[in-house]
Amino acid sequence: MPNDTKFAPRWDANGLITGVVTDATTREVLMVAHLNAEALSLTRSTGFAHFWSRSRGKLWKKGEESGNTLRVIELRVDCDQDALLMICEPAGPACHTGARSCFYRAVSSQDGDTTLTVIS
Amino acid sequence: MPNDTKFAPRWDANGLITGVVTDATTREVLMVAHLNAEALSLTRSTGFAHFWSRSRGKLWKKGEESGNTLRVIELRVDCDQDALLMICEPAGPACHTGARSCFYRAVSSQDGDTTLTVIS
Repeated sequence: MPNDTKFAPRWDANGLITGVVTDATTREVLMVAHLNAEALSLTRSTGFAHFWSRSRGKLWKKGEESGNTLRVIELRVDCDQDALLMICEPAGPACHTGARSCFYRAVSSQDGDTTLTVIS
Repeated sequence: MPNDTKFAPRWDANGLITGVVTDATTREVLMVAHLNAEALSLTRSTGFAHFWSRSRGKLWKKGEESGNTLRVIELRVDCDQDALLMICEPAGPACHTGARSCFYRAVSSQDGDTTLTVIS
């Protein structure tokens, strides 16, 4: 229910919930990834963002290899509790490409063609 | 590939891609919803956000009943093209509860209990 005060994440058929990471300072959307119950539990207990990698089929702490961790400042949940907003302090670029945000390309149309343009 | 200039959304097993909507003015995350190919096509051709409702099993234009439409100012895609960032101008509250954003509750812990606190 919309005004429930009970935290009850709605896991999808694969036991995952969508996590949207924003930068606490700039409010920029940095990345989107998925959490299973263990990733959420570790995120909450350690204060650092953990996710479930669908492609690698494993739990990962963001930045465990690159050092570009995400310290979670605040965790929010949406009205139907199937998405999380993770307001974070990033230790470095959030994207594995080295971009500050994974959303570094805009979708644009020109002469009927759709192309991507790097914006940051 | 990360630096591809070709827009090639990676649909999931259900033919959907995650869409994150932000407010172009405040940069606030307003909602998360899913798009199928038709919803994306209509979003791009009309300039207004359309989604696929997983619970109702139908296409919908955000605000078609409430009037709280989302005019898409810019569309971005993430590094692996499985999520879209829709930077929008909202005509009213984005959440069906009347809240400006669907993420109006923070997850907090107190005395070992996890509760939700309304923050806006």
